[in-house]
Amino acid sequence: MNIFHGILAAGLLVVMGMPAFAQDTGRHFPAPDTVSPQLKQMIDAAPPAYWNAHPGTTEEWKAWASSLAQEAVKGLPELREKLGVSVIRSEMGGVPVFIFTPEDLPEANRDRVLLNLHGGGYVLGAGESGTLEAVLMAGMGKFKVVYADYRMAPDFPWPAAIDDAIAVYRELLTTTAAESIGVFGTSTGGGMTLILAMRAREEGLPLPAALAAGTPWTDLSKCGDTYATNEGVDNILVSYDGWLGDAARLYAAGHDLRDPMLSPVYGDVKGFPPTMLTSGTRDLFLSNTVRMHLKLREAGVPADLMVFEGMSHAQYHMSADAPETQFHFREVGKFFDRYLKQR
Amino acid sequence: MNIFHGILAAGLLVVMGMPAFAQDTGRHFPAPDTVSPQLKQMIDAAPPAYWNAHPGTTEEWKAWASSLAQEAVKGLPELREKLGVSVIRSEMGGVPVFIFTPEDLPEANRDRVLLNLHGGGYVLGAGESGTLEAVLMAGMGKFKVVYADYRMAPDFPWPAAIDDAIAVYRELLTTTAAESIGVFGTSTGGGMTLILAMRAREEGLPLPAALAAGTPWTDLSKCGDTYATNEGVDNILVSYDGWLGDAARLYAAGHDLRDPMLSPVYGDVKGFPPTMLTSGTRDLFLSNTVRMHLKLREAGVPADLMVFEGMSHAQYHMSADAPETQFHFREVGKFFDRYLKQR
Repeated sequence: MNIFHGILAAGLLVVMGMPAFAQDTGRHFPAPDTVSPQLKQMIDAAPPAYWNAHPGTTEEWKAWASSLAQEAVKGLPELREKLGVSVIRSEMGGVPVFIFTPEDLPEANRDRVLLNLHGGGYVLGAGESGTLEAVLMAGMGKFKVVYADYRMAPDFPWPAAIDDAIAVYRELLTTTAAESIGVFGTSTGGGMTLILAMRAREEGLPLPAALAAGTPWTDLSKCGDTYATNEGVDNILVSYDGWLGDAARLYAAGHDLRDPMLSPVYGDVKGFPPTMLTSGTRDLFLSNTVRMHLKLREAGVPADLMVFEGMSHAQYHMSADAPETQFHFREVGKFFDRYLKQR
Repeated sequence: MNIFHGILAAGLLVVMGMPAFAQDTGRHFPAPDTVSPQLKQMIDAAPPAYWNAHPGTTEEWKAWASSLAQEAVKGLPELREKLGVSVIRSEMGGVPVFIFTPEDLPEANRDRVLLNLHGGGYVLGAGESGTLEAVLMAGMGKFKVVYADYRMAPDFPWPAAIDDAIAVYRELLTTTAAESIGVFGTSTGGGMTLILAMRAREEGLPLPAALAAGTPWTDLSKCGDTYATNEGVDNILVSYDGWLGDAARLYAAGHDLRDPMLSPVYGDVKGFPPTMLTSGTRDLFLSNTVRMHLKLREAGVPADLMVFEGMSHAQYHMSADAPETQFHFREVGKFFDRYLKQR
């Protein structure tokens, strides 16, 4: 199965008068021969029709997000079954959560938990629709994963999302020692992973044992080299000036986009736990990723960077069958295994 | 002082009927605000006039390389003095070497040695002209550095260069244990660093304790995503179809460009020592770097990747004053300190 196609298909359903492919940057490059056939197919695919969507009203944002969510959930039950991952819906700290457990949870991971914060620009990925990465991590990385279904824009602007994330983390701490907790996420979820560590420190909570931030949105302002150099080269996000920049402003709701609680690359990372970062050579967020990585290294934090050949934004979790996906989740699993205490 | 300007100036001296700026890819991006003023200046500079040089005859190649070398050496005595690095010229295994020692060599590094293999596409960087990186590593990383002045094209095609490198390494082993030896280099020198480890294994020699391959030329064929996506974005190499591809074919002299002894990304890296790799978001060799990094990780080799924001090919060693340069050599120094035995 290929979740990516589900997402693309969802894009095609989006109408609401938004222009599809309104802007062609003319910077298309055929996929290289240096990636798997599955990734090659993703690289050669057209951008999702919705990349340049610009919902205007609150209702338009919600209808848009809802139509994408309906498509995104479609392959998930099948994927959970294929990977042998069970799911329980619950609530932690007043926030809805999904708890994913692989049927073959290794003994070593029995008392370890990963908290997952999903991506989607603070507007997409609500409920089950954002659980893809959590399922892959549970199924391929063999960890128990708690997925936080945090509140988002337009109804709940900043800091609702990170408030919810920290509430779940705080409750997790009542049953699991911080040294056995890892936090991970992709894109917006990668940014939130980093912000969560800052918030935990601010609130006097013990920090998680390790973080994995996949192509994290560390700068919500249009600042960073690959916002320019990979514009139109990345076939997932395509450009900051598509739906993405609108989503940043919608969630920030007038707040300074460079506040570290929105853009963690401007924050203080001293004392952070070991952090793994992932990106791709075509990723619009490559600069978001490497700027954060360099900052962590300068602060003396053990920081591990992996950049996938030819990959646009977050494609390492868009096809469960791609070798790159399996490699990614194995590597993240090994990273958490290295740094999380067993009990 | 800014070595980069010396190199640019050298380019302006090149005449010999080669077209300068013959091809403009039209893909220029202003430097981002996310780098130091020194790096920003490098990013906004025009490509070296010689990037699209195509020397035809053996004599034209030699005249071209010689004119660039004359410019490149100019700032080096001043740089050595500034960084407190002494130099001795000698010979090891029949190969001319330069031995660089920082005046404040730490006690911990007294019995450690780094072997440096310079860059230059197997045609540039002969003699003192290729010693810039060795001087920076000695001065900023605080290691004794042996620089191998290996033979190059057009007079000495493959495998002369790597033969010489391994001859120096073999002689180093008579005075220093392999576990106290590190090998490093940039670009062609980064590729050779990786090839040297393969050759050492082939010849039954103990492998060095650690490798640092800066933006290594791991694929001499035009294969890899950023040969396309960063063409014209990288303002140092600019394009494989400039002097670079010609140099690959000149040195290979009819040999398969994808032989692992020319393109180590096709080689077997099992059992490699810990390896650090560096590149930049605009680097034409970003794919050369990340493909190698992923391959090393898949083989279970501890492999550390660092990608500089906004940086084109190898700019981390083109201005001694840039904070990025100082950071780079500190990080490489820490990496070797971590893996090289003290005695």
